[in-house]
Amino acid sequence: MQTPWDHRYAQRTQRMASSAIRELLKYTEKPDIISFAGGLPAPDVFPVEEFRIACDKVLREQGAQALQYSTTEGFRPLREMIVRHTLRYGIEITPENVMITASSQQALDLLGKVLINPGDNILVESPTYLGALQAWNLYGAEYISVPMDENGMDTDALEDALRAGPKFIYVLPNFQNPSGVTLSLERRFKLIEQADRYGVPIIEDDPYGQLRYEGEHLPSVVVLDSQSRDDCQHVYRGNVIYLSTFSKILAPGLRLGWVIAPPEVIRKLVVAKQAADLHTSTFTQMIAYEVSHGGFIDRHVPVIREVYGHRRNVMLAAMDRYFPPEVDWTHPQGGLFLWGILPDYMDAAEVLEAAVDEEKVAFVPGEAFHPAGDGKNTMRINFSNASPEKIEEGIYRLGRLIGKMVKESHTVKGNGSKAKAGSQVNQI
Amino acid sequence: MQTPWDHRYAQRTQRMASSAIRELLKYTEKPDIISFAGGLPAPDVFPVEEFRIACDKVLREQGAQALQYSTTEGFRPLREMIVRHTLRYGIEITPENVMITASSQQALDLLGKVLINPGDNILVESPTYLGALQAWNLYGAEYISVPMDENGMDTDALEDALRAGPKFIYVLPNFQNPSGVTLSLERRFKLIEQADRYGVPIIEDDPYGQLRYEGEHLPSVVVLDSQSRDDCQHVYRGNVIYLSTFSKILAPGLRLGWVIAPPEVIRKLVVAKQAADLHTSTFTQMIAYEVSHGGFIDRHVPVIREVYGHRRNVMLAAMDRYFPPEVDWTHPQGGLFLWGILPDYMDAAEVLEAAVDEEKVAFVPGEAFHPAGDGKNTMRINFSNASPEKIEEGIYRLGRLIGKMVKESHTVKGNGSKAKAGSQVNQI
Repeated sequence: MQTPWDHRYAQRTQRMASSAIRELLKYTEKPDIISFAGGLPAPDVFPVEEFRIACDKVLREQGAQALQYSTTEGFRPLREMIVRHTLRYGIEITPENVMITASSQQALDLLGKVLINPGDNILVESPTYLGALQAWNLYGAEYISVPMDENGMDTDALEDALRAGPKFIYVLPNFQNPSGVTLSLERRFKLIEQADRYGVPIIEDDPYGQLRYEGEHLPSVVVLDSQSRDDCQHVYRGNVIYLSTFSKILAPGLRLGWVIAPPEVIRKLVVAKQAADLHTSTFTQMIAYEVSHGGFIDRHVPVIREVYGHRRNVMLAAMDRYFPPEVDWTHPQGGLFLWGILPDYMDAAEVLEAAVDEEKVAFVPGEAFHPAGDGKNTMRINFSNASPEKIEEGIYRLGRLIGKMVKESHTVKGNGSKAKAGSQVNQI
Repeated sequence: MQTPWDHRYAQRTQRMASSAIRELLKYTEKPDIISFAGGLPAPDVFPVEEFRIACDKVLREQGAQALQYSTTEGFRPLREMIVRHTLRYGIEITPENVMITASSQQALDLLGKVLINPGDNILVESPTYLGALQAWNLYGAEYISVPMDENGMDTDALEDALRAGPKFIYVLPNFQNPSGVTLSLERRFKLIEQADRYGVPIIEDDPYGQLRYEGEHLPSVVVLDSQSRDDCQHVYRGNVIYLSTFSKILAPGLRLGWVIAPPEVIRKLVVAKQAADLHTSTFTQMIAYEVSHGGFIDRHVPVIREVYGHRRNVMLAAMDRYFPPEVDWTHPQGGLFLWGILPDYMDAAEVLEAAVDEEKVAFVPGEAFHPAGDGKNTMRINFSNASPEKIEEGIYRLGRLIGKMVKESHTVKGNGSKAKAGSQVNQI
């Protein structure tokens, strides 16, 4: 249909690419496909009954409030709950440091709106979270990317990147989406130290922090930043804006996340959020509070860890068995994803096409996660959503396909030298 | 707290003013204030019990789906319901014409993101909806404003405005927020004819269309546009993007609205929404569908009309009784607001300050609704939220205060000539 809108789109829409991930979700809808493409939690772990009881209680006791408009900052008891939760992890904040958002994705969008001028450089890991790139592209962001290895962002490469004068650093220290790797404690300190030296603040995105299946919990960057600088150990310094979400520990269908930031930044975000959606659903906020406030999340997270940890183990074991030696992959200590690295002469998008056609398996090619457009031979593989049986079967099929494609490359192209993945996630 | 964020805000934040309305909501929270400031529905008419039953059913039968991620376009059965609803009002569309948004405010924000380049002119009524100005200011919009009278936008002034080359026309034809006035049928035709002649498309914002308390329903601009042009009467032409919401007919606490637009515009909006919040809460969408799909809204809207119509009558009668003759006001046939026009030597912001201090009554000064910054002597008064008794009492107190202030002006300034409001809403 031709309409008068056709030639009226804003210039920024030229930087809009429909998310590769979202486009691929159509594959996940077909029941005969084993999908490792989405980042979906397992529905098995949703506390449906707790939600049912909470809805009933909230609507019986506070129905008029739950269905009415409310404040942009978010439901006060929920913000106070976040304050208590944050204190347990090591820093003192107040409700004036907290805003509830419609998921972390909204926090990224609002931060972009409030902070990014066209042409501003943002320092990111490569690969990094695609949703951040999508949100910030529309505000005209450019990127300085720092490579990663199995210990996260390569902080030796950080200083050069900081000299280029980024507006802020964006980092996902725990079980990063997409790579699954975790920033080591040593590097967390180094990141803070260097950021401080160059006066560049940090946005820390931590959707998966609680979903650790092995190893010791590492303090968040925001916590280390507050502790490492002040005599008064536990005060929030304001250098790090911290994002998290209820999507992985409760349910993504609520669309609830939160931002921790200095009060002045929160005030700016509140005005931006007024213009964006006035406020987040009162009802979902009250339900989340009702389900959570009595300590339910502390009881529930171990259940999630158990289920996802098992799936991760099944996937890693299956990859050991079925993937050809030319392929490498990360060993995430938590989260939802691992990262596959094909020989550098292979294209993960071609592998996906064949995987869906011939083997009925889906994953996400890694290129879109790289702001500089490299990483054609990488793939993001989700282990939280499919059952262990499907994981075993899907990895078997994917291994069979990749093995066949590797062999064909050897035969056809003669470039069969073992392009074994090194330690750098994005260099292979 | 000084932080490294302080000097890092984007330039667009200079056009951020915290909403006068939102700031004033703090007055509404004090129990001793009679507030006509917000645009809040009456909680009395929320169908709390229907929601309770719907939550129970959805969580028992489709709990895993309701709590999971879902598509950006919105819950398909809800979009199909909008298609059927739209057909009843006279035009055929398909689900590809519909996106669910987190309230109409989000639709305004996403439309701004997709359409507005810095410096673009948008043709708006004056006064117009503040939320649109707030959303679009952040994308660098400028405004060409067309005055209103009791029949809505003055279409005689439209041609000059169109010659200035606006990107689109933004119009709220039914019981406009803030003025309460309705665009006459004759002017709707004239608007369409002129927009068509100049090739300028229209965004029609219609949150209150169903809340009519007297007079005949007038077809939406989007409906008239489709009917007046084609032989095939009922086909959506795509010139008009139409916005509406569940906030006024069901409950605002859900944050659910919808956009009707050409499929290509919807695709752009979907990509923008992916970056903004991925998708609207699956749970609230399924609950709204469950409550609505069996015809509940048709049974519920008459209840709302009854309650709000009565409150409007009480307010109009009280204003007749208690307001001094120097003040004029609109007589809305529906919606939530009426518009008070003080003598032009008065400042509604000063009246508000005195009203809160001396009389414990609140309303919203009208200046912020005027893109050109005029309208200092106007005020938006909500009649949906307070009980009839509070309306009577509040208008009595407000009339007493304004009467006193008018008298003082006569005495002090000697400019007591009766500055009676004329027919133009924004010229007084």
